[in-house]
Amino acid sequence: MNLDLAYRSFVLGVAGHPQVERLIKHRAKGLVRRYVAGETLEEALKAAEALEREGVHAILDLLGEMVRTEEEARAFQRGLLELVWALAGKPWPKYISLKLTQLGLDLSEDLALALLREVLREAEPRGVFVRLDMEDSPRVEATLRLYRALREEGFSQVGIVLQSYLYRTEKDLLDLLPYRPNLRLVKGAYREPKEVAFPDKRLIDAEYLHLGKLALKEGLYVAFATHDPRIIAELKRYTEAMGIPRSRFEFQFLYGVRPEEQRRLAREGYTVRAYVPYGRDWYPYLTRRIAERPENLLLVLRSLVSG
Amino acid sequence: MNLDLAYRSFVLGVAGHPQVERLIKHRAKGLVRRYVAGETLEEALKAAEALEREGVHAILDLLGEMVRTEEEARAFQRGLLELVWALAGKPWPKYISLKLTQLGLDLSEDLALALLREVLREAEPRGVFVRLDMEDSPRVEATLRLYRALREEGFSQVGIVLQSYLYRTEKDLLDLLPYRPNLRLVKGAYREPKEVAFPDKRLIDAEYLHLGKLALKEGLYVAFATHDPRIIAELKRYTEAMGIPRSRFEFQFLYGVRPEEQRRLAREGYTVRAYVPYGRDWYPYLTRRIAERPENLLLVLRSLVSG
Repeated sequence: MNLDLAYRSFVLGVAGHPQVERLIKHRAKGLVRRYVAGETLEEALKAAEALEREGVHAILDLLGEMVRTEEEARAFQRGLLELVWALAGKPWPKYISLKLTQLGLDLSEDLALALLREVLREAEPRGVFVRLDMEDSPRVEATLRLYRALREEGFSQVGIVLQSYLYRTEKDLLDLLPYRPNLRLVKGAYREPKEVAFPDKRLIDAEYLHLGKLALKEGLYVAFATHDPRIIAELKRYTEAMGIPRSRFEFQFLYGVRPEEQRRLAREGYTVRAYVPYGRDWYPYLTRRIAERPENLLLVLRSLVSG
Repeated sequence: MNLDLAYRSFVLGVAGHPQVERLIKHRAKGLVRRYVAGETLEEALKAAEALEREGVHAILDLLGEMVRTEEEARAFQRGLLELVWALAGKPWPKYISLKLTQLGLDLSEDLALALLREVLREAEPRGVFVRLDMEDSPRVEATLRLYRALREEGFSQVGIVLQSYLYRTEKDLLDLLPYRPNLRLVKGAYREPKEVAFPDKRLIDAEYLHLGKLALKEGLYVAFATHDPRIIAELKRYTEAMGIPRSRFEFQFLYGVRPEEQRRLAREGYTVRAYVPYGRDWYPYLTRRIAERPENLLLVLRSLVSG
């Protein structure tokens, strides 16, 4: 098990303890505000407006974890609809992201499809773009099925996500070409077995560039969702060299991660979006951010000590 | 300057001294025989036959460096023709490799084209495949021009080489698609400025995989000329996963480099070719092999000491 993985498992393990959760929620407010816009829709919209003033567009993401009942799925959908309606009047690009498990995918695909369709029916006429996040590998097939179904029903303001750490992804990309998908490309953030995912970070990065260049060559619009400076620099060089206009792709970051790089890219004329999470269920999201960057663990410890 | 580069420059610099050359030629025969089949055509054919017995096919490569006059170019062409005629009767796959500078490319493109055409006229009817090596970046354009010209004249048993360390290569690959080229893909072994080539080894490797997968996806026959175990393993996984038959690609090694891996791949049913250099002008070739692998420098020093 490499060091990255050991560190992540350790952090996610410790963070799961109720006392640790209480301590962080109480003492690490500074760190929370860096990565989470707030617990309410108003706080999220405020964060989005602040980003807009810096030339960065927001992807608003209502946080919510495990949905176990249809009722919880419908309650979550309610939150999404409120977000869509609240965005409707905004003068800046309107864009939300959601996970299908939050709409009951694990309960029934039909339920998730029905709830998602209702969201798109509200979102599309209001100019709100909806991104279906990709979750862990057992859910890839269903997520792609729902995406294709909704595109076939005529919805166009909905995008998909593919993960470069999965072996299957090039095939998924080629199969999706007829749909001319708006594609977000990520490396992938779940712990996957080596039977389905590259264990070697260098191959994940190489596949990221391969799939990104392939998608651009096939004429797709691609959102490059990575913080990796090497990959961002190569994509800037590549698109310039191949004469691919900046209207054909964008860069996406997590809210609070490399904010100065987000602003710099925006000033250089690239479309930049930040994935702005909000909602009461922010703790699991925050622990994933801590698990990704040892520096964040230091920030947590420092805020626990300084209080 | 990274360590690799410093080591290479040091070795190539020292190896240039006449006394060092004499010493190595006299004392390092064991190392020479490992990487060079011999000085004569007979020794080269013998080495090719030995490889065939191990299931590895030979690419015979007559060594020769700087050609300064038309006379030297014609003399070199003579050697190639003798090689082609000698191969004609052989029962195993017949395949040679040549550098266009050896046919006077630096003197005149027309001369090189004329001499190469004569070689192909002799080779093609005898079933001898001819690979045009790719040299340093200032010669890429001319090499591609000659390749296209000869394909347009109707020659089909001639292949080209593209180098993944050059930024231009994806465009070159896409431009070549109409010719359905038999493509050898290498990382690239010349010292190139960062204005034309990736300085970052990880991007060279990523581009190698990207171009290789792109070429396979476009239906080309690809010879993967790399010793990199990570890349070989990923190509084996990728071709298997994408259902690309082993008749559509091959692996190529340098003679004497990872011979056990060459045999293992052949036993697994892959087409494997070894690039077998021979001829009197082997010294510059050998120094490049030493410059590539510090282990080889140790072998040289050991043979100088043991004598």
